[in-house]
Amino acid sequence: MFEEIYLGIDIGGTNIKIGLVSKSGKLLKKFIFPTPKKRADIIDKICSQVNLLKTRFKVKALGIGMPGPVDSINGIVRYLPNLPGWENVKLKAIFEKKLLIPVTVDNDVNFMGLAEYNFGAAGKSRNCVCLTLGTGVGGCLILEGKIYHGSTMNAGEIGHMPISIDGPRCGCKARGCLEAYVGNTRIIALAKKVFKKKVSLEELSIMAKRNNKKAAAVWEQVADYLSVALTSVVNLINPDTIVIGGGVAKSGKVLMSRLKKQIIKRAMKAATKNLKIVFASLGNDSGIIGAGYAASLSTRKNAQKK
Amino acid sequence: MFEEIYLGIDIGGTNIKIGLVSKSGKLLKKFIFPTPKKRADIIDKICSQVNLLKTRFKVKALGIGMPGPVDSINGIVRYLPNLPGWENVKLKAIFEKKLLIPVTVDNDVNFMGLAEYNFGAAGKSRNCVCLTLGTGVGGCLILEGKIYHGSTMNAGEIGHMPISIDGPRCGCKARGCLEAYVGNTRIIALAKKVFKKKVSLEELSIMAKRNNKKAAAVWEQVADYLSVALTSVVNLINPDTIVIGGGVAKSGKVLMSRLKKQIIKRAMKAATKNLKIVFASLGNDSGIIGAGYAASLSTRKNAQKK
Repeated sequence: MFEEIYLGIDIGGTNIKIGLVSKSGKLLKKFIFPTPKKRADIIDKICSQVNLLKTRFKVKALGIGMPGPVDSINGIVRYLPNLPGWENVKLKAIFEKKLLIPVTVDNDVNFMGLAEYNFGAAGKSRNCVCLTLGTGVGGCLILEGKIYHGSTMNAGEIGHMPISIDGPRCGCKARGCLEAYVGNTRIIALAKKVFKKKVSLEELSIMAKRNNKKAAAVWEQVADYLSVALTSVVNLINPDTIVIGGGVAKSGKVLMSRLKKQIIKRAMKAATKNLKIVFASLGNDSGIIGAGYAASLSTRKNAQKK
Repeated sequence: MFEEIYLGIDIGGTNIKIGLVSKSGKLLKKFIFPTPKKRADIIDKICSQVNLLKTRFKVKALGIGMPGPVDSINGIVRYLPNLPGWENVKLKAIFEKKLLIPVTVDNDVNFMGLAEYNFGAAGKSRNCVCLTLGTGVGGCLILEGKIYHGSTMNAGEIGHMPISIDGPRCGCKARGCLEAYVGNTRIIALAKKVFKKKVSLEELSIMAKRNNKKAAAVWEQVADYLSVALTSVVNLINPDTIVIGGGVAKSGKVLMSRLKKQIIKRAMKAATKNLKIVFASLGNDSGIIGAGYAASLSTRKNAQKK
């Protein structure tokens, strides 16, 4: 008999990743291939891969993480900032028609959060806030065990929480957003000011680990900015766990210890007493694990309905 | 036969209010008396009042709102900033033993929010954020129809969301909290700067309504500060409704129209498209209505369990 599996797919601007995930959220195998340019080609490529897998496994359901806002109830991709041609695409309907299995679509950060919450860094948590630090700053809320989407499915935009009344202009056109302070390009700009030359994030991380004081100062500044937004998160949502993912997590101890110190200093005592702040532990696989796990949850929900 | 009612009690620093609330959340009658100084006297006074009411009504359950942090699962008052002697008081257990009816204890702002959500300004809402503007700035989250308490029951502290990286020192000792900008005393200080003399909040509201430009400028400044924290709330929680209560709500149109304009300008478009921002509509009765309604919910929950 065929092994029962769930597929978790992560569509990125550069690569598409497909993961074979067990019912309990274990990543059994993964494939990576370059993202085709056209939407139709992306969909065709995924269908042919899934059909190939169906010849070898009993594929129960499919979860797909998208790099942009998604109406996850109806499985509609609203748009993708870095991939053209994805306005209001009924992706769930398209794939369910082509593949004849249940399909769950959500934002990739939500799936990342779901994976870290259930199998990763969050450990035993009830209310968990995940943050991804990259070119953009993304976020996801897992409240009382479930992804919290908000009223129009736009919750978790931690990157666009303002941390100052004025402040620098953000890509979203507002002023003072967290992302306008700690997005990768802003950190690199900060480092350039300190070092009087261009320094990559990788170099900055390595230097900080070797106790370079200038590099440490840059990460501490980043931590100070982050602490303002995360103090708001702690005082508003009172999570028990904050998971921080993305490339910046590689900066290691300097950032983390400063961040913890500042949040404890700024936020309400009762809310920080048992608060855990940790780096994500599933790395780049969290998206496909979360997508596969969400797919498995969807079949359980369907089973309950019947 | 006796009429079935629920009691909603609001213990404030100055007065204790008792409301008789119907199962559907209608306030049938209310009593107000001064808050005794000693904790034991407060408890005795409430017990004698409730026992008196029990001779005339079938009192099904009791809800009590407290002006401070509460462990609402166990009904324990953690402490009250403005009333001494309330550290870790098992209020639910005390009253249930003395009164022999189910007792629900929660923070007063949570009950205010529950009332506005179900019977007040929120109208049809799924995810609602309530804000009370007074000496302190309080908040409450009603997510997916329920009070969201957070992991250690400290959620909703909107007043302590920082809106600047440094900023003025707050009563909580942190810097840049919203409350340090828009708490009543801060608004009065702002007005004093503009008018070169002491102006009360009431005067400031009346002047703004009479189109006094200086008074309008003060309220616009308050709205600008508020908009920073509420942009964070909108981008993080993506509510469909924000309810604003407390004395400042009397400032009227100037504050509200500027606030809406600024939030629409700053927050993510998709999250503000259908967002309602409204003043609370139940006034000072919201606390007892919410407490009484919570009491009625608790008996329904108990009934379901059986």
